[in-house]
Amino acid sequence: MNSQNEILENLINNISKLPGIGKKSARRIAYYLINTPEHNAISTANSIIEAREKLGLCKECFNLSEDTICSVCSDRSRNKEAILVIENFHDLYLFEKLNIHKGVYHVLGGLLNPLDGIGPNALRLDELFNRVKEHNISELIIGLNHSIEGDSTSLYISNRLNSSGVKISRLASGIPVGGEIEYTDEITLRQAFENRK
Amino acid sequence: MNSQNEILENLINNISKLPGIGKKSARRIAYYLINTPEHNAISTANSIIEAREKLGLCKECFNLSEDTICSVCSDRSRNKEAILVIENFHDLYLFEKLNIHKGVYHVLGGLLNPLDGIGPNALRLDELFNRVKEHNISELIIGLNHSIEGDSTSLYISNRLNSSGVKISRLASGIPVGGEIEYTDEITLRQAFENRK
Repeated sequence: MNSQNEILENLINNISKLPGIGKKSARRIAYYLINTPEHNAISTANSIIEAREKLGLCKECFNLSEDTICSVCSDRSRNKEAILVIENFHDLYLFEKLNIHKGVYHVLGGLLNPLDGIGPNALRLDELFNRVKEHNISELIIGLNHSIEGDSTSLYISNRLNSSGVKISRLASGIPVGGEIEYTDEITLRQAFENRK
Repeated sequence: MNSQNEILENLINNISKLPGIGKKSARRIAYYLINTPEHNAISTANSIIEAREKLGLCKECFNLSEDTICSVCSDRSRNKEAILVIENFHDLYLFEKLNIHKGVYHVLGGLLNPLDGIGPNALRLDELFNRVKEHNISELIIGLNHSIEGDSTSLYISNRLNSSGVKISRLASGIPVGGEIEYTDEITLRQAFENRK
């Protein structure tokens, strides 16, 4: 059965490519999709196809959107002069859930990583610089990870906008609330010490 | 964005119904399906649809099959007189991987569970009894879980086939190989003691 049932193996194989899903879970999910009432399985498949067909990127900020301009950018109550620069859609979702940023976003689509061949042109950096230049941007908040890639991307952005007059800040790094000093890595601890207030 | 992007939320919602996948993983998988090259996402969706369209149940043993009779049942080298009774496809897959059973299977499709409304008619028990009666079945191996449901299903099968002359056995229960007595539950320990050899 293993080698002969190509349709099942193909399904398992596709599912096991999804992030966080190993071969065993993929098999369990495949059996579920085969055993569940047909409309459940078909609606899962169709929702994937629909998402690929209908979702695009916002022309302004590169957020996921069904329309040319996303719901954040087309919201008149948002402050268009303050941009929170983030890596991906998921980070945008997290910030929106917190409801702490009243401005708009700019989704870079990744972080600079020369070793993996990700240079400035692979990200939406020129689009960011154009936005800053062409619109009346007064504040840029950099919401990128505190990692080597996040640091170098932040530095690249700051350098390029050095003379633009825009106010640039970056999310604070430090010991997470509830985190223990004993288990905090050295770099974080050092930064937390330097940034003490 | 949260409430407005229905297509995305619909996709996340469908994915989070899959077994073992919570809301957070579902969101991660949805972003992956949107970001991955289109053919990956579409081929995942299509493999679900194909599985639902083309996979059916073997007329003999109720294994998953692309054909009327599955590859195990149509394999002439298998002993058609020995049936291993199992709960679902996945158990069949596990036994086939071990390559220890030279006979055929019978997939019940569940276990008796009156509290959940699963009576004998909800399972493929009549089909099993018919197979035993109509074909020349000499041995029945019950490969069901050692749980209340597995025990009562096994007992039901044994009682019904009591006078049929078929040899009935059940997989041994006991302490798992590599398992520690210290961490073995009382019922297992009691049975392992009684079944000592």
